[in-house]
Amino acid sequence: MIYMTQALKNAKKAFKINEIPVGCVVVRENKIISQGYNQRNKKNNVLYHAEMIAINKACKKINDWRLENCILYSTLEPCAMCAGAILQARIKKIIFGCYNHKFGCAGSVINLFEQEKFNHKVEIISGLMQNECECLLKNFFMMLRKTKKIEQKEI
Amino acid sequence: MIYMTQALKNAKKAFKINEIPVGCVVVRENKIISQGYNQRNKKNNVLYHAEMIAINKACKKINDWRLENCILYSTLEPCAMCAGAILQARIKKIIFGCYNHKFGCAGSVINLFEQEKFNHKVEIISGLMQNECECLLKNFFMMLRKTKKIEQKEI
Repeated sequence: MIYMTQALKNAKKAFKINEIPVGCVVVRENKIISQGYNQRNKKNNVLYHAEMIAINKACKKINDWRLENCILYSTLEPCAMCAGAILQARIKKIIFGCYNHKFGCAGSVINLFEQEKFNHKVEIISGLMQNECECLLKNFFMMLRKTKKIEQKEI
Repeated sequence: MIYMTQALKNAKKAFKINEIPVGCVVVRENKIISQGYNQRNKKNNVLYHAEMIAINKACKKINDWRLENCILYSTLEPCAMCAGAILQARIKKIIFGCYNHKFGCAGSVINLFEQEKFNHKVEIISGLMQNECECLLKNFFMMLRKTKKIEQKEI
């Protein structure tokens, strides 16, 4: 739970800067080696999803593109890009909080981690601290809708 | 052909530094706005695939994560990570040279660009300058095998 709690703390950092609240950590030998939170809008760049930031930092930290002994904890099921990066980096296990019914590529829309033809498989654990991760996202989108309504009234 | 020729020139830059020769360009309103070539080993980082480098640069160039009016030319069919980034960036069209039977996610293994559930579809054109793109890859892997044989003899 401590690693997902830290991932959730990172997601809250995204919330504070008005980004969709997704956070993650990369763990190796029971130590957090890198962290990330979604900053796509702030950076105006698709490559700034939480998982991509954390994978980028982890590669730099251990100076290797192979993150074979690493576990990635994310508050949200990864999209195709992030799932693809996890596969490319040969991360051994992904543990995520809540499901992404629109873009999730660890089972919700498709499952990139268990494709027969790929040379790497990733173990998946889902639903860890699901309620907390889901609530944060719901609160964010509720806030967004309220802000939009207020803006519309002001126009 | 001029854009794929340029993508191929980029792939040759990768070849010269002993990287799997993949190159690409991002085109917007008939102008190349960014380019990339594979540097995964040099940078020790999975995020340095040709397409990721070019998408990163394109987002920075136009200061937007939405590359909606862009076309990506790549010498090789994109992997899951790169296909996911293309989807996330809402690139409208991808034109690639040769097929990636092991990791290709534009039809060879799976097709991420035509998933019913995703909110964005990407037009695919495949096989442009296929022979040239394929030959470059074949030459690279042939050279790799030769180098390994020589190394084994020397041990």
